[in-house]
Amino acid sequence: MSELRQDPTTKEWVIIASARARRPHYFVRERSAAKAPDYDPSCPFCPGNEKMTPPDTAVYTRPGEAAGRWSVRVIPNRFPALSPEGSLERRGDEVYVAMDGVGIHEVIIDSPVHNRHPALMDDDEAEAVMRVYQQRYIELRQDPRINFIVIFKNYGEEAGTSLPHPHSQLVATPVPPALFRRKYEVAVENYDRTGTCLYCDICERELSERRRLVMETDSFVVFHPFASRSPFETCILPKQHRPSFAQVPPSELAELAHVLRSTLFGIYEKLGNPDFNYVIHSVPTDEEESKYYVWHVEVVPRLTTVAGFEMGSGIYINIAVPEETAAFMRGEGD
Amino acid sequence: MSELRQDPTTKEWVIIASARARRPHYFVRERSAAKAPDYDPSCPFCPGNEKMTPPDTAVYTRPGEAAGRWSVRVIPNRFPALSPEGSLERRGDEVYVAMDGVGIHEVIIDSPVHNRHPALMDDDEAEAVMRVYQQRYIELRQDPRINFIVIFKNYGEEAGTSLPHPHSQLVATPVPPALFRRKYEVAVENYDRTGTCLYCDICERELSERRRLVMETDSFVVFHPFASRSPFETCILPKQHRPSFAQVPPSELAELAHVLRSTLFGIYEKLGNPDFNYVIHSVPTDEEESKYYVWHVEVVPRLTTVAGFEMGSGIYINIAVPEETAAFMRGEGD
Repeated sequence: MSELRQDPTTKEWVIIASARARRPHYFVRERSAAKAPDYDPSCPFCPGNEKMTPPDTAVYTRPGEAAGRWSVRVIPNRFPALSPEGSLERRGDEVYVAMDGVGIHEVIIDSPVHNRHPALMDDDEAEAVMRVYQQRYIELRQDPRINFIVIFKNYGEEAGTSLPHPHSQLVATPVPPALFRRKYEVAVENYDRTGTCLYCDICERELSERRRLVMETDSFVVFHPFASRSPFETCILPKQHRPSFAQVPPSELAELAHVLRSTLFGIYEKLGNPDFNYVIHSVPTDEEESKYYVWHVEVVPRLTTVAGFEMGSGIYINIAVPEETAAFMRGEGD
Repeated sequence: MSELRQDPTTKEWVIIASARARRPHYFVRERSAAKAPDYDPSCPFCPGNEKMTPPDTAVYTRPGEAAGRWSVRVIPNRFPALSPEGSLERRGDEVYVAMDGVGIHEVIIDSPVHNRHPALMDDDEAEAVMRVYQQRYIELRQDPRINFIVIFKNYGEEAGTSLPHPHSQLVATPVPPALFRRKYEVAVENYDRTGTCLYCDICERELSERRRLVMETDSFVVFHPFASRSPFETCILPKQHRPSFAQVPPSELAELAHVLRSTLFGIYEKLGNPDFNYVIHSVPTDEEESKYYVWHVEVVPRLTTVAGFEMGSGIYINIAVPEETAAFMRGEGD
């Protein structure tokens, strides 16, 4: 029988569909790593082609990098969704409200190597990327117009990018998403009722149940959420209560690099290199002392299509069982 | 400059991205109508193959149908997301809540003709489909375990179906979606503040502004919403305040058939037959006297990909401007 599960962070229902459920093995693809060369003279993100992009905002060179090379490079998005000029004033009336699209939209070039797959980086390369993510986050949160910062990666066309050179993006908005407001409300309600942080409760619960666990390190728990909306959705949750990605100390950032890279490698290797997205979630920049929220990373391989029912109702039908997919990632089951 | 617009029904923000905005013409595809035959002997939805499906729940024959043929046929979904047996009792604890996947999942075969495109039906055929939609809705809402009914269509692989024979689906759930709860809360807040129904306010507003209007009939207004999340998203909103699709009188149902078919034909003809979804939204079955909500149809052509930012934040980046796409559908502009 199918099961309706309620996402504890949003209170939205998810259908874990047993009659149409697929065993983890069903999602394995036969796709080898990209055949792209390690350098493409026409790629604007490749070293030597820096003139093809807007001037960089930041450049990072890690100790192990080849002489004269950058390791990670940050540039403004050439076609930004939001841009720094404009006013925060609301326009509109009782029904329709709008404001200028004020904000920041940056591209983070993760590596100088054109065909470097994010799952195949070494820990040092991955750590350089995490450091730059955090540096940008910390710098941009100083801007009083910025309220919310999302760092994310789209890998592959099904995940929304057509550029093969490894890159991430940062979008900083002047307003928090209504979705975040809702999650916060749920988390506050949980705190009032139990006296504990919902995200810390989830962490503890996954560590004691272990059925949805993929990996555990000193500082992180990696698991397939109880109410996953899609197959192999993965959450990387820190054990230590910190609301914002800005607050992660250097040693934990290095550990995150390892954990994220391992998670991506697991997906790459066991599912045959599917397209994926990941997103770093934090509180708004002015709520970093919050008792109610913990920063975390959501990784979503793009294995299924969102259809009319999901779009219309908000309830997702997941054709995989999180306990089974987690076991598969741990090397148990089929 | 980009604009941040707030969806008046959910309070979520949408970025109408000007720097990356595409003129309406950009979304036109070169794709002709499906080349499928009008009958496929291996198709379980074709007449004569009724034995290949579970026994039908309902069959409808319209006056103009060929002798001995059904016009619309309703069957249980062979791989249902939800099924009638089970209990409504919640399982779980403070953190994780679940319940049996109780509900109904039906397939509505829209036409006996294998290659009948939903945009190319005549009004009589479309009306037969609407009648069956409503009959099923009215019958299933009697089931005391059912609380919420979603009728929807996925057309094409990008919209989530691989079966070419025209069909729709109905999913009836024992719980309302959290997304609906949120929309309702917003609508009640609007009513308390203004004394009017938010959806009626929107209807009035679109009729007076007319910039986002695609079509108007006696009973309906068709428009591209102010805070559309994706290009050419279309809302079909009745002028008369009725919370549930069950309450639509026969004459208005016939008009809906015409309006929906015209909307789909506009998308088919002007955009080159893209895949699409549509969804009929209603209140929960036990709130049909609500002052706060109006049933409506949402039509979404699948022209873009949802990426990491949208998934993580809930804020969508729309690369088309609703006022421009609506003008394009009206035959103005490029």
